[in-house]
Amino acid sequence: MKLLIKDVTIVTMLDDDQPFRGDILIEDDKIKEISSQVQEQADKVIQGNGKVAMPGLINAHQHTPMSLLKGFSDDLKLMDWLDKKMLPAENNMTPEDIYWGCKLSMAEMIKSGTTAFADMYVHMNEIAQAIEEVGMRASLTRGLVFFEDDKGRRLREAMELIDQWHGAADGRITTMFGPHAPYTCPPEPLKEVIRLAEDKKLPIHIHLAETKEEIVKIRDKYNQTPTEYLYNLGLFEKSHVLLAHAVHLTRKDISYLVGMRGGVAHNPVSNLKLGCGIAPIVEMLQRGINVGLGTDGAGSATTLDMFEEIKTATWLQKLDYGDPTQIPAKKAIQLATKNSAILLNIDKEVGTLEVGKKADLILIDINKPHLMPHHNIESLIAYSVNGGDVDTTIVNGKILMENRQLLTINEEELLQQAAVRAKRIVEGI
Amino acid sequence: MKLLIKDVTIVTMLDDDQPFRGDILIEDDKIKEISSQVQEQADKVIQGNGKVAMPGLINAHQHTPMSLLKGFSDDLKLMDWLDKKMLPAENNMTPEDIYWGCKLSMAEMIKSGTTAFADMYVHMNEIAQAIEEVGMRASLTRGLVFFEDDKGRRLREAMELIDQWHGAADGRITTMFGPHAPYTCPPEPLKEVIRLAEDKKLPIHIHLAETKEEIVKIRDKYNQTPTEYLYNLGLFEKSHVLLAHAVHLTRKDISYLVGMRGGVAHNPVSNLKLGCGIAPIVEMLQRGINVGLGTDGAGSATTLDMFEEIKTATWLQKLDYGDPTQIPAKKAIQLATKNSAILLNIDKEVGTLEVGKKADLILIDINKPHLMPHHNIESLIAYSVNGGDVDTTIVNGKILMENRQLLTINEEELLQQAAVRAKRIVEGI
Repeated sequence: MKLLIKDVTIVTMLDDDQPFRGDILIEDDKIKEISSQVQEQADKVIQGNGKVAMPGLINAHQHTPMSLLKGFSDDLKLMDWLDKKMLPAENNMTPEDIYWGCKLSMAEMIKSGTTAFADMYVHMNEIAQAIEEVGMRASLTRGLVFFEDDKGRRLREAMELIDQWHGAADGRITTMFGPHAPYTCPPEPLKEVIRLAEDKKLPIHIHLAETKEEIVKIRDKYNQTPTEYLYNLGLFEKSHVLLAHAVHLTRKDISYLVGMRGGVAHNPVSNLKLGCGIAPIVEMLQRGINVGLGTDGAGSATTLDMFEEIKTATWLQKLDYGDPTQIPAKKAIQLATKNSAILLNIDKEVGTLEVGKKADLILIDINKPHLMPHHNIESLIAYSVNGGDVDTTIVNGKILMENRQLLTINEEELLQQAAVRAKRIVEGI
Repeated sequence: MKLLIKDVTIVTMLDDDQPFRGDILIEDDKIKEISSQVQEQADKVIQGNGKVAMPGLINAHQHTPMSLLKGFSDDLKLMDWLDKKMLPAENNMTPEDIYWGCKLSMAEMIKSGTTAFADMYVHMNEIAQAIEEVGMRASLTRGLVFFEDDKGRRLREAMELIDQWHGAADGRITTMFGPHAPYTCPPEPLKEVIRLAEDKKLPIHIHLAETKEEIVKIRDKYNQTPTEYLYNLGLFEKSHVLLAHAVHLTRKDISYLVGMRGGVAHNPVSNLKLGCGIAPIVEMLQRGINVGLGTDGAGSATTLDMFEEIKTATWLQKLDYGDPTQIPAKKAIQLATKNSAILLNIDKEVGTLEVGKKADLILIDINKPHLMPHHNIESLIAYSVNGGDVDTTIVNGKILMENRQLLTINEEELLQQAAVRAKRIVEGI
């Protein structure tokens, strides 16, 4: 199967490339040719005139089923949000709700140009099934907390997820270990997880230093910062690690991360909305630490539109430094593509438009009043485009959305399921 | 002419109202009835099922023709942005460019749910003509700077604008005086403008305390803060004033604004993007100072989507206070409707959905994956909706957009004009 995108403005996201006009030929799941004019015949041709082709966005930190709780608990103190709203609602969610919640998130992601994501939740079997059906790329993690003795149930489920789904769905699904956070994972079980991850050669996805309260908690318990706590357990040395948030880091904390594999998933919108703070991503990037972007769950962020994260990431650093030159447009877009791919450990396959890479890409319609004129395509993408401007979404060479129509999800059925289930889940809370 | 919107979720933006289902009847330019079921027959019926009806958004600070410079000069230091890019480009703009630039901004505004705006620029005759044709509501200001002696040309043009256009286009166009900013307006000419505004009973639109550099400049020149400078000239006492930005205010500055008519147009996206800082709007609101929202010109903000401003306004206060309860959803939306209407001195006519008010309203399609489920309509509007979700835009009872089709602008012609003119304007810069 050959798919040809003709006469499109191509943004590869490689450091040395400028946007240019040309054609992209996709064969099966891979990019076969990128050139000013492809000569080969294709089974299907998409006219790219007035459009931008760029790598699909990669959402490096998500809890997909929480889309069913979108808007349920905004404008609350963090602990009220969690204890009075999120936890009781999550307790009401069935495995089937989780399947539909994940699908709702995927519909939103595909419609806003995201092609891959990292997910941490429970009932991962249902999530993996939804992803296999819908056709996105994902790195899945069974969240592990070690509050009480659950006789190893959670860890068993994590191992089942890994055994059953790692490399599944034509390689679109990969897995990680998911110890939840320093404050929910004591040293002994965490060391065990690190050992298992080393053994299985799998990455680790963990929350770190999202709130000031976490800093105090870990200081009281271990007389360390959360970052020191993980460093002293050997985490950064032994594993590829995806650190979600990393808002409250000391300069010394940052030095512990230098040289790590993986990096930090920055979630600027969620950090703002919950009043957490501004993560020091300029300093991390300057010290060679990889930083990608994520939305966090829709329960806090209320949007999975990665273009919002791109904008907000650069705005916050411009604000923090009082300097509009911080994180310029191209760098901001790279955070959500190239850099997020590194976090998910899939950067050899996706994250840039290059011959031989998997065909995960999107087309953006820029022939609209709010995207005219075209002085600078990268500026336009970083500051003016929103998810609704994405026209076509392709993952692994397969078109998941064309002209804003979802091709692998029955949208009407999904919206109905989401409405009914969401209502039931929050009843009485 | 009677227009009926049936079975829609109505968000009036009045303090005591919750969203409710009902019908809205519009007769000519006014809202005639809002009730659970309108019995009267109408000439045209819009089915509102799956949609939200709310007051049109009001952009309280704009320089519309700068849409032609969108994305031309991002990620630059403020002075480079201004001196090396904006000023040379603006010098290349003809009156005809200004007409088309304003029209491009209006297309974007209508398509993202804005129904009224305050504009400060030059060649206001062309801008007023474009507005008269397109059908939006606007408050126009000829920007006044008193750097060099222009023999009163600018002030003459301001008077011509007022004489010719105040109350024109069925009352959709009003005017203000527009002394540009404390650092471009010395005391004598500024006093003269204040006197003229008092005389004509017209408001004043002025920039205030956007950057730290301005604070230093005014301190050096007058040994006052910019706010003190305006206060001591009697501005707040004598006129209804629209203050754009007001980022850098001392506590004492804020006390000078207490009791003023008009208030502050907060431009959070532009303030972020230029690295200016966070305006103290929570403190102002607590002290009873009216705060509305604006985008500033697309040359800096790169977007005229007021939903971005709503989100960003609340995010920044949540961040600044480390408290997610600051500026909750409904208050955030009120900033862009009710409060902005006060700034433009048109709050008796628009800003809320009420019987007898002018019919300036928008319909938002919320039957979409990223806007499902519907736990909380106000949360959805404040945090999840973007301009592209606006389905229908009505101003003065006239439909300017229906099903995302512009009815008073030839979009194809506009995009072509914008592309060609934008290219010519920046040539050689």
